[in-house]
Amino acid sequence: MSTLKYGIAIFPSKEIQDLANSYRKRYDPRYNKIPPHITLKERFEATKEEINDFTSELEKIAKEIEPFDIEIKKVSSFSPVTNTVYLKVEPNESLTTLNKRMNEGKLPKSQQFAFVPHITISQELSEDEHSDVYGSMRMLEFDLKDHIDRFQLLYQLEDGSWTVYETFKLGN
Amino acid sequence: MSTLKYGIAIFPSKEIQDLANSYRKRYDPRYNKIPPHITLKERFEATKEEINDFTSELEKIAKEIEPFDIEIKKVSSFSPVTNTVYLKVEPNESLTTLNKRMNEGKLPKSQQFAFVPHITISQELSEDEHSDVYGSMRMLEFDLKDHIDRFQLLYQLEDGSWTVYETFKLGN
Repeated sequence: MSTLKYGIAIFPSKEIQDLANSYRKRYDPRYNKIPPHITLKERFEATKEEINDFTSELEKIAKEIEPFDIEIKKVSSFSPVTNTVYLKVEPNESLTTLNKRMNEGKLPKSQQFAFVPHITISQELSEDEHSDVYGSMRMLEFDLKDHIDRFQLLYQLEDGSWTVYETFKLGN
Repeated sequence: MSTLKYGIAIFPSKEIQDLANSYRKRYDPRYNKIPPHITLKERFEATKEEINDFTSELEKIAKEIEPFDIEIKKVSSFSPVTNTVYLKVEPNESLTTLNKRMNEGKLPKSQQFAFVPHITISQELSEDEHSDVYGSMRMLEFDLKDHIDRFQLLYQLEDGSWTVYETFKLGN
């Protein structure tokens, strides 16, 4: 049976997305493939039948977690592991729990690295470009806050872009 | 109070989206701004408070309409009104009702032209380019079917791209 590639993400407020896009436009070749987001669960494959099962599980998880606030204060980088520069989302128990719950039980494990909540603003640059970009952004200070009350299940098209399949609202 | 620009659309199956993107990539300058879609309600502005009201109304509308099938058999064009070429969605009572219900009552009217359900594959081309593209596509025949069980409320970012805000599932 044919499968689709799925992922789970949070879209922050328009204000934060617009800020992220002002960098992504220049420094992220995947700028056009998906809006700015916090990945909750890395890409995984599923058949139509499996995804029905998974969405019931995701509904349960969403109900367990009340809406919560996030903060962004600075830019960071995953270098030297990858040349990815990102808006760092301050450590947050709700995000950590969501990520953990989405990689256990019925749901396939699709976590490659330790979970570091972030919004990518630059990736796939050469070593030199990365140094320049990160060098110019690492001193930036932000005071961004957002209220998170939902997450989205998406699937990937052949051209690498992502389409939202379903929204899950947090809490009851 | 600040407003966002919202719109309502259906994303067809991955198969139909991939087909539409194979044309959009070359002929649609807005290819990167939103996945291939059937617009149900044209762009409208709303405050955060208004959109809360509107989403309750949209939940009601979604429940009234059972999931339904659509068919695509050919390409058509809005020329001479606009140089938009599209996958024509065969006339469909559920789509017409959804569009009508989304432009009455509590919800702001945002319908510019008569409702013609379609998936845009080419737009904003010069007269000559449009003639070439439409000329080469008007003879195509498709036999595409899809089962529609949800629609999406989206908002627009500053760069013109669209982010999904909420999914509404049809029926009970």
